[in-house]
Amino acid sequence: MTENNLLYEGKAKNVYKTDKENELLMVYKDQATAFNGKKKEVLPGKGVLNCRISTLVFDYLIKNGVKTHLIENLSDHEQLVQKSDVFPLEVVLRNIGSGSFVRKFHLEDGLELREPIIEFYYKSDALDDPFINESQIHALRIADKEEITTIKQMTLEINQLLIPFFARSDFDLVDFKLEFGKVNNEIILVDEFSPDNCRLWDKTSHHSMDKDVFRKHEGDLVKTYHSVLERLTTR
Amino acid sequence: MTENNLLYEGKAKNVYKTDKENELLMVYKDQATAFNGKKKEVLPGKGVLNCRISTLVFDYLIKNGVKTHLIENLSDHEQLVQKSDVFPLEVVLRNIGSGSFVRKFHLEDGLELREPIIEFYYKSDALDDPFINESQIHALRIADKEEITTIKQMTLEINQLLIPFFARSDFDLVDFKLEFGKVNNEIILVDEFSPDNCRLWDKTSHHSMDKDVFRKHEGDLVKTYHSVLERLTTR
Ligand SMILES: Nc1ncnc2c1ncn2[C@@H]1O[C@H](COP(=O)(O)OP(=O)(O)O)[C@@H](O)[C@H]1O
Ligand SMILES: Nc1ncnc2c1ncn2[C@@H]1O[C@H](COP(=O)(O)OP(=O)(O)O)[C@@H](O)[C@H]1O
Ligand SMILES: [Mg+2]
Ligand SMILES: [Mg+2]
Repeated sequence: MTENNLLYEGKAKNVYKTDKENELLMVYKDQATAFNGKKKEVLPGKGVLNCRISTLVFDYLIKNGVKTHLIENLSDHEQLVQKSDVFPLEVVLRNIGSGSFVRKFHLEDGLELREPIIEFYYKSDALDDPFINESQIHALRIADKEEITTIKQMTLEINQLLIPFFARSDFDLVDFKLEFGKVNNEIILVDEFSPDNCRLWDKTSHHSMDKDVFRKHEGDLVKTYHSVLERLTTR
Repeated sequence: MTENNLLYEGKAKNVYKTDKENELLMVYKDQATAFNGKKKEVLPGKGVLNCRISTLVFDYLIKNGVKTHLIENLSDHEQLVQKSDVFPLEVVLRNIGSGSFVRKFHLEDGLELREPIIEFYYKSDALDDPFINESQIHALRIADKEEITTIKQMTLEINQLLIPFFARSDFDLVDFKLEFGKVNNEIILVDEFSPDNCRLWDKTSHHSMDKDVFRKHEGDLVKTYHSVLERLTTR
């Protein structure tokens, strides 16, 4: 892997071409960003932790029938994945109201929801990842109606699998962000699943064990992610 | 009608109780506001023009089977309407990209759309009328799924009726905002339809003949609305 092969330098990962046309190398970085890149820090150990946590989650989802891009791990911070046409969408599912959702509607943090909420954000650094609805997604040809339906369906299924997965380790899965891509006309889960892009609350104390400790200066991110990994592997 | 009966002082209309429990008096005011009330002006003649234009539109929709709140006009700026439980939603339909939509996505004004876009905004002065999606509308109990489906269906039907209605007077119906309410468990069109809450472009010159002349200081609002009324009654 040389810098010549660097396809995309992301905020949390770098993506490289490989010898195979249809495979990519995803390298997790020791870097955290928040507020669309406005807050940024180097955090040694973070890349390995996110790679290991994401691998646990993806392996579990794959075992339960979810199609994903993961082929295999090449090291403790590198994954070989299927190259896909990524929909430029952040798909957010909320089981409990928190974050931007409660701020926007002046609701209290931790609001119980009658049903999971799904939101789409258009991935665009230039536009600051705006909130977008299904009608706009279709009109702007970001995805067509059938694809949107499949993406929502897969997101709900993944949620139904992940709620008990995290509950076993005494976490409430408050919300999470997914990305989807298309390979051979099939929609698959891509990117990662880590405490960088979900909210995990300790079931007893309700303390955050996710990127909110970084956003809100509530503690050591690497230590927190380490505890998450430990709990997922031991409880 | 006394000030004692004033139920709601709006930006464009005042709403009064009447002798009948299930009827309201809607009085159109000579006032224009924009940018959620940040720009405001008294404009003599505007109330009558909007009331007359809205009456033409509502009468046409009623004739074509759309259920609305309109009972009858009591003067040139007063309407007797059915009292309804208004959904606190601004329902926006776009046939052509303009306004906040093209600003948000950095698109060019006048963008052709493959299909009409529907957007919902949560009517709340305190929150500045935020953009909201169907999943959030349902979760926050603003409307349930069946109601959202009906509202979208009615909005598309109204659009199909209004495109030729305005085309006959040489207008392109670029976009518009509707409100819906519930009476006896039935969803009906409420509020008004005037150049205050739609974009009408002259088919030849593409000039705005709507509140954009006020927002953008492009001309005399009352004269413009007067031309709209004249065209609707003579062409
Ligand atoms: N299977 C895949 N095929 C192609 N691109 C992918 C795949 N999985 C993830 N990506 C993309 O790789 C990038 C990962 O880097 P990341 O640091 O998360 O980027 P960002 O700063 O855009 O969030 C993202 O843009 C993501 O959409
Ligand atoms: N049939 C109806 N029943 C009850 N309320 C209505 C009805 N039609 C319109 N309204 C409400 O009356 C108000 C009209 O005044 P307006 O000046 O448009 O208010 P706003 O400043 O909230 O836009 C709006 O709040 C609208 O929702
Ligand atoms: Mg990312
Ligand atoms: Mg109004």
